Amino acid sequence: MPRRKNIPVLRSTLARNIRKLRAERHISQEALADMAGLHRTYIGSIERGERNVSIDNIEKLGKAFSVAPNTLLEDEPA
Amino acid sequence: MPRRKNIPVLRSTLARNIRKLRAERHISQEALADMAGLHRTYIGSIERGERNVSIDNIEKLGKAFSVAPNTLLEDEPA
Repeated sequence: MPRRKNIPVLRSTLARNIRKLRAERHISQEALADMAGLHRTYIGSIERGERNVSIDNIEKLGKAFSVAPNTLLEDEPA
Repeated sequence: MPRRKNIPVLRSTLARNIRKLRAERHISQEALADMAGLHRTYIGSIERGERNVSIDNIEKLGKAFSVAPNTLLEDEPA
């Protein structure tokens, strides 16, 4: 059973933004993992809101996408 | 000796923004800790860039300040 109950709002926002950026740029979870120096299964769990991601990893994800890291936490990115 | 070497950029940004908001609003570390449901010494270590703060705690800090949590990671907040 997926652990979807009571996912904190900001985790959901990060998950949505990561999925959206990956889709727009046609990047697989595995490719993003390589770019960010993280594990593929970890990217998957971030995208399901399962992980209490750290600020250092938010920074790595921002670098991987070449976006300002705060935009990954924006509710309605421009 | 303070552990200041090689603090990741985003930790420093968060630390600066937290210190700035506290100063603007005349809120002590202890008061912020109470508002966010965190420990006072933890707030101090965040402000020194020592902590790899989690996204759940970034959310708590945003709520405590009544700001959108992504603004806490903005390099030049408006």
